[in-house]
Amino acid sequence: MAGSATRAQIVAAADRLFYEQGFEHASFTAIAEAVGLSRGNFYYHFRRKDEILSAVIESRLENTRAMLRQWEDEAAEPDARIRRFIRIVVTNGPDIRDFGCPVGTLTAEMAKLRHPARPRAAALFTLFRDWLRDQFAALGHHREADAMALHVLAFSQGVAALSNAFGDEDFVRREVERLEGWLDTRIPAAD
Amino acid sequence: MAGSATRAQIVAAADRLFYEQGFEHASFTAIAEAVGLSRGNFYYHFRRKDEILSAVIESRLENTRAMLRQWEDEAAEPDARIRRFIRIVVTNGPDIRDFGCPVGTLTAEMAKLRHPARPRAAALFTLFRDWLRDQFAALGHHREADAMALHVLAFSQGVAALSNAFGDEDFVRREVERLEGWLDTRIPAAD
Repeated sequence: MAGSATRAQIVAAADRLFYEQGFEHASFTAIAEAVGLSRGNFYYHFRRKDEILSAVIESRLENTRAMLRQWEDEAAEPDARIRRFIRIVVTNGPDIRDFGCPVGTLTAEMAKLRHPARPRAAALFTLFRDWLRDQFAALGHHREADAMALHVLAFSQGVAALSNAFGDEDFVRREVERLEGWLDTRIPAAD
Repeated sequence: MAGSATRAQIVAAADRLFYEQGFEHASFTAIAEAVGLSRGNFYYHFRRKDEILSAVIESRLENTRAMLRQWEDEAAEPDARIRRFIRIVVTNGPDIRDFGCPVGTLTAEMAKLRHPARPRAAALFTLFRDWLRDQFAALGHHREADAMALHVLAFSQGVAALSNAFGDEDFVRREVERLEGWLDTRIPAAD
């Protein structure tokens, strides 16, 4: 139990460092220092940075699934759920301005490193894609649901990239309003 | 003359390696090997990777300015010029699928590294932003021209990120068509 708590602490510290500094830059030593562990204790849990990366990605997948379940619990209507996703770029605004989108920047880095974890990192996008597709399907968009899900994901990536580059909150608000306007036209009128 | 040709060769090799592997991962040694230079000859031109980075960014800025001037020469109408930009995600499709957008991924990496070159990297975005704004202004959109320019830039970043993650050409084509449809509604009708 103490062992698994330590492991979780390492994964949480590495998750944050990979996000804030990038996977390549965040060193094994920096992660050990962040959790204040001796090298021996640290090695007991992880021997290579790639092993920590795998644990971080699996942890992000689990946290994302839990967050999506929570959004489902908190909002019964599919369009309200989609709005929750759209507004992430506002909710997580400060982090995104400093470090970009955690999913997009990790996936891009894995691609450049030709890293074997690339498909698992991309699976984070797939979680959101499938969840958004299910919401659009519940709104009655069946054939187009996946294309709509990708459109919303592309919005989030575009806004995150430019928010990170320019730090312009008005731009983020404008794009959120624009996409919510687009979403409004996709909600079937109540009978 | 031979000296400046060698320098340009180093910058071109580093530009490609920074794009394909990321700045942090691409080593000084890998760049020297890519141009086949002795360490002494290489050091004559650059002593630190940060110096190469600055030269790469200035070179990208110059190449981008030249490309935008060429687009202006090749298309007289502002909407045709904007379409040239929109279609970059198709024109550069294979590179984007493998390595993402060169501007977006470099800017994101500079942010995570808290690198002093971050503002110069973001200036690459500003070149496109200002150029797109000028085209929208020429179409008669004055107060909204900058917001429209950012909307088009966000599109390019969103499409590049998801193309890199999923490698789905149909998605890219759909988003290009969608944005071209949006652009069509922004072109004033001919009298």
